[in-house]
Amino acid sequence: MEKSESAKIDIPESSRERKGKAPLLGSPVQYARKGGYKRGVAIFDLILRVSAAAAALGATVGMGTAEQTLPFFTQFFQFQASYDDLPTFSFFVIGMAIVCAYLVLSIPFSVVCIARPLAIAPRLLLIILDTVALTLATSAAGASAAIVYLAHNGNSGANWLAICQQFGDFCQKTSGSVVASFAAVVLLIFLVLLSALALRKH
Amino acid sequence: MEKSESAKIDIPESSRERKGKAPLLGSPVQYARKGGYKRGVAIFDLILRVSAAAAALGATVGMGTAEQTLPFFTQFFQFQASYDDLPTFSFFVIGMAIVCAYLVLSIPFSVVCIARPLAIAPRLLLIILDTVALTLATSAAGASAAIVYLAHNGNSGANWLAICQQFGDFCQKTSGSVVASFAAVVLLIFLVLLSALALRKH
Repeated sequence: MEKSESAKIDIPESSRERKGKAPLLGSPVQYARKGGYKRGVAIFDLILRVSAAAAALGATVGMGTAEQTLPFFTQFFQFQASYDDLPTFSFFVIGMAIVCAYLVLSIPFSVVCIARPLAIAPRLLLIILDTVALTLATSAAGASAAIVYLAHNGNSGANWLAICQQFGDFCQKTSGSVVASFAAVVLLIFLVLLSALALRKH
Repeated sequence: MEKSESAKIDIPESSRERKGKAPLLGSPVQYARKGGYKRGVAIFDLILRVSAAAAALGATVGMGTAEQTLPFFTQFFQFQASYDDLPTFSFFVIGMAIVCAYLVLSIPFSVVCIARPLAIAPRLLLIILDTVALTLATSAAGASAAIVYLAHNGNSGANWLAICQQFGDFCQKTSGSVVASFAAVVLLIFLVLLSALALRKH
């Protein structure tokens, strides 16, 4: 009789975790409820992660393919504008590509968190790397936003002219990529806070 | 005899926490050790927080006082450069001032974490607001770094000339402020990760 009960408890959770922690945490019912809460958080984490990866991919591709060739030639401007004319946009493409690759590669760890909701190690790894990815994405987004603003408005004090009158399509594409990168930043903020919440009630 | 022992246990910890959690977590000795570990983390958190506030203050003041008046006048450049000629630098000053004010105002919460190492609420509040402050500081630092790079190097594709030949002192001051802001960003990253570590073993 006792054996069959222990087998019943085994079903919702992994065996190692149960042996170490369950007797301290109270009844198996309470334990299963806590695992369910953490599993819900982990599933939401996976959804946010995939969305953030999609936003980062969109930002990378949008900026990487942004180029425009003018049909005419003036004294002051080149024929062609592409993202690698501006070092900040190159940094943006590289940074967002790294963030996108990290987010895709971290999906297996997020799945591990769904399978083993009470494991700490993958959560800690995810929150540390998520914070670094958040910083990289935010700096790339902020830097590019500053340059896009300058391209739209120019600056009379520094005698920098707006280039968006000439390169309208280029400016629109880069602006769209910056917006997508800020979406990725917001999703990454929620990912970090979600991991912190999941670490809380262990 | 039992009463005097319970009084002895009361000393290192707050009373509410002890009543609710101590019986679940194991022996009082183990519990006191855990509280000591968390108190060490909280003290380190306070030190990092004060350092980050100092770095943010330095960045704000450095950028806010950066101005230069040229002794001569040319056809293309103004007499004077100050941070509010460039909207990005204005954003930098406002953003870093907000981060600095937040960090100073959050010191009492950090002190509460030292006094009550096992309390969850102030930790959660701190990690959420720290993440937001990290994002604000990073975007301000990244955006200003992009503009400082442009001021130093210019961009031939967009026909933006480097202004640092004319405004050398201004450029040096703004570059120093950007470096200070990145120091604040690194300290904020460690603050977020430290709060995550402190939330872990509850």
